Amino acid sequence: MEQIKVGIIGFGTVGAGTVEVLLKNRDIISSRVGSEVVIRKIADLDIDSDRGISIDSALLTREAMEIIEDPDIQIVVELMGGLEKAKEYILKAMKNGKHVVTANKALLAECGDDIYRAAEEYGVSLAFEGSVGGGIPIIGSFKRGLSANRIQNLMGILNGTSNYILTRMTDQGLPYQEAVQEAIDLGYAEDPPTLDVDGTDAAHKLVILVSIALGIPVSFNSVYREGIDRLTPEDIRFAGEFGYCIKLLAVARNRGDRLEARVNPAMIPLDHIMASVNGVYNALYLEGDFVGPNLYYGLGAGRNPTGSAVVSDIIYLARLISHGISKLVPPLAHVHPQAKEASARPIEDLQTAYYFRFSAKDKPGVLSKISGILGDHRISIASVIQKGRDLKGSVPIVMLTHEALESDVIKALSLMDKLDVLTDKTMMIRVEQGEKGPSE
Amino acid sequence: MEQIKVGIIGFGTVGAGTVEVLLKNRDIISSRVGSEVVIRKIADLDIDSDRGISIDSALLTREAMEIIEDPDIQIVVELMGGLEKAKEYILKAMKNGKHVVTANKALLAECGDDIYRAAEEYGVSLAFEGSVGGGIPIIGSFKRGLSANRIQNLMGILNGTSNYILTRMTDQGLPYQEAVQEAIDLGYAEDPPTLDVDGTDAAHKLVILVSIALGIPVSFNSVYREGIDRLTPEDIRFAGEFGYCIKLLAVARNRGDRLEARVNPAMIPLDHIMASVNGVYNALYLEGDFVGPNLYYGLGAGRNPTGSAVVSDIIYLARLISHGISKLVPPLAHVHPQAKEASARPIEDLQTAYYFRFSAKDKPGVLSKISGILGDHRISIASVIQKGRDLKGSVPIVMLTHEALESDVIKALSLMDKLDVLTDKTMMIRVEQGEKGPSE
Repeated sequence: MEQIKVGIIGFGTVGAGTVEVLLKNRDIISSRVGSEVVIRKIADLDIDSDRGISIDSALLTREAMEIIEDPDIQIVVELMGGLEKAKEYILKAMKNGKHVVTANKALLAECGDDIYRAAEEYGVSLAFEGSVGGGIPIIGSFKRGLSANRIQNLMGILNGTSNYILTRMTDQGLPYQEAVQEAIDLGYAEDPPTLDVDGTDAAHKLVILVSIALGIPVSFNSVYREGIDRLTPEDIRFAGEFGYCIKLLAVARNRGDRLEARVNPAMIPLDHIMASVNGVYNALYLEGDFVGPNLYYGLGAGRNPTGSAVVSDIIYLARLISHGISKLVPPLAHVHPQAKEASARPIEDLQTAYYFRFSAKDKPGVLSKISGILGDHRISIASVIQKGRDLKGSVPIVMLTHEALESDVIKALSLMDKLDVLTDKTMMIRVEQGEKGPSE
Repeated sequence: MEQIKVGIIGFGTVGAGTVEVLLKNRDIISSRVGSEVVIRKIADLDIDSDRGISIDSALLTREAMEIIEDPDIQIVVELMGGLEKAKEYILKAMKNGKHVVTANKALLAECGDDIYRAAEEYGVSLAFEGSVGGGIPIIGSFKRGLSANRIQNLMGILNGTSNYILTRMTDQGLPYQEAVQEAIDLGYAEDPPTLDVDGTDAAHKLVILVSIALGIPVSFNSVYREGIDRLTPEDIRFAGEFGYCIKLLAVARNRGDRLEARVNPAMIPLDHIMASVNGVYNALYLEGDFVGPNLYYGLGAGRNPTGSAVVSDIIYLARLISHGISKLVPPLAHVHPQAKEASARPIEDLQTAYYFRFSAKDKPGVLSKISGILGDHRISIASVIQKGRDLKGSVPIVMLTHEALESDVIKALSLMDKLDVLTDKTMMIRVEQGEKGPSE
């Protein structure tokens, strides 16, 4: 049987998962490709640690360039992470005519433009299923099964660590710091889990999804991000009373000339299927103009799921090589993209519904002052919960608004913060109503 | 720009949806393919009815053979349905070197073997994303994103009509016949909806999924099917008391030498994500050895979603044609399948948990008689609900069992039916425990 030779740069968690899939499911892979996929070399600075996989030590090297310059290697798999070095290796590998697989979401989100262009320039294929949603076949679905659609909305739970933390805060009423510590203790989060909880990781993934949905790279810096560290169990409980749960959502809407793309904690209705996505699970909900609403769900990270995605990319590229073609679908699945780079609109332009929790002194007339300021800024109230309950010396007034303009909300809240009847900064959470399917 | 010419056989609901997607999203399709996809001919016996699409009447013909014999047409799209004629047209088109797209699940399930073999023999590609799950990109995920996995379990809600009926029975407590009538009135069901409610349609789709998961055709006749018409609102309510809902499930498990594949009403835990799949929605839940649990969800039928799937197949084939290759991935995504045809094991071999509802006379000793027979057949009781409530002159005794062998259950129930303390046939529903994810 013909052999297709693979070099892997990076033998960490995902690298080890990839090697394990290639070895354990060798029979399935050969059967699906029609050729044998062989690991020719694995490069890592650490070639001594035990990864729990029995592998010929002659395959290991500390020199990534040995892979990039090996004329026998047809597919280079970049799993080392980081930006500069990884980019350098990928570009050199492409220049040497090698197809590239990567799961490096930060690199694609921040420097994707250069990498997509290099793949086109050198006439090689680039695959990156493992960069978003672990093993869930999201990228492949954009490239293939959804390709007839104009994608109108995306709504993703794209970071398992923050979803685990929010699930624990919701189910057990844990405060944020306790839930974070638990996630660290269980190995679901790094210590500190900064990029997971501040929205950066989800924003990286959102940029990749929006880029492939539009067919053109989207500027990472234009994507608004807000983390989950301000959230309290009280807000989660109040959200529940209104019929919502709180998730860290990556949201994008394509309204022709106006692209909305942001990551923020958001309220979603409890009867929306995204509300059932708990623990370390990830999910992507989207709406296409013909396919309607779709959801994909699974484990969004980890050695095995990401290894599954990386090897599916290797299989895809190996199939192309077996058939003697070097590319079939461009990196962003558009042969003729219509623009150079897209930017999301500033968050101030957002129009959505809002949740506010005011910390008020228990005096008459407070609600009237608050609603006066809201009215002055074209923000209308949909429902209010006011309880006698004393929360740290003040009474919470909680409300949902109708759709309003974020710039108006920013102005109104900055005026609120100066009111002497309010004892603390006002909590604001954006609300996603979620389009309903035809039958529900 | 190069043109790729398509002929469509069948201008019914899905045919009209396909034409509409091709026309409305022409810009996206050209951009993704790099060539223009052009409708060259549409064949249907009825070329006079208005489909709400403005199309040059010169494209319409009553003769499918005009498409099959047109040397300019590269892709033939079969959307006429039915078995013999559709099969004849597809085989002739392949023989003439044309790639084929079909959404004909009955044909693939019942005669897939011949069609997959013909595609291989004539060296053309066959695509059938629209045959299962409407627009949800399920087939593409098996071919690509999941390709590194051994698929261990499948659990699908693959028929929107029956899921709508069960959702209404659950939410409103409607009896079966009323829910069916409502589905017919709303256009979600045909009158009568036989193939939807008796499990045949879901079994067709299951056969296609299992065939592509294994890489070899599976015999349709070996798949056990049971419909939803016996279910009562009482059973749905009792299921809820035990923490379950009832869905028409297509289930397959691959245990090496032992293939389980069946369609039956089944209880699933309310906290399983499949329990959130309501109304006309479809979903497929699966477990792969590396990817872990995955779920795909969306509209499983209808003009637009199925049109989206069919056109995604056309785009895929057009990309191959643009690159001058006639096939990349075989119909069942295995280049070297290991066997000719697989059969599911008989239902008698099934091992699962069960729900029983006995209609008992309100007398002492009934439960002891029932549990005696169960014990004699190695069926152990997990929990029981016995209520004073009088249901049509008898008292319901409802129980969940631990895992038991179906052949033992069949024997035990046939003995029960002869007991004079039971006033009616015993209701039996299979229970899926659902593997739990790591964090829940």
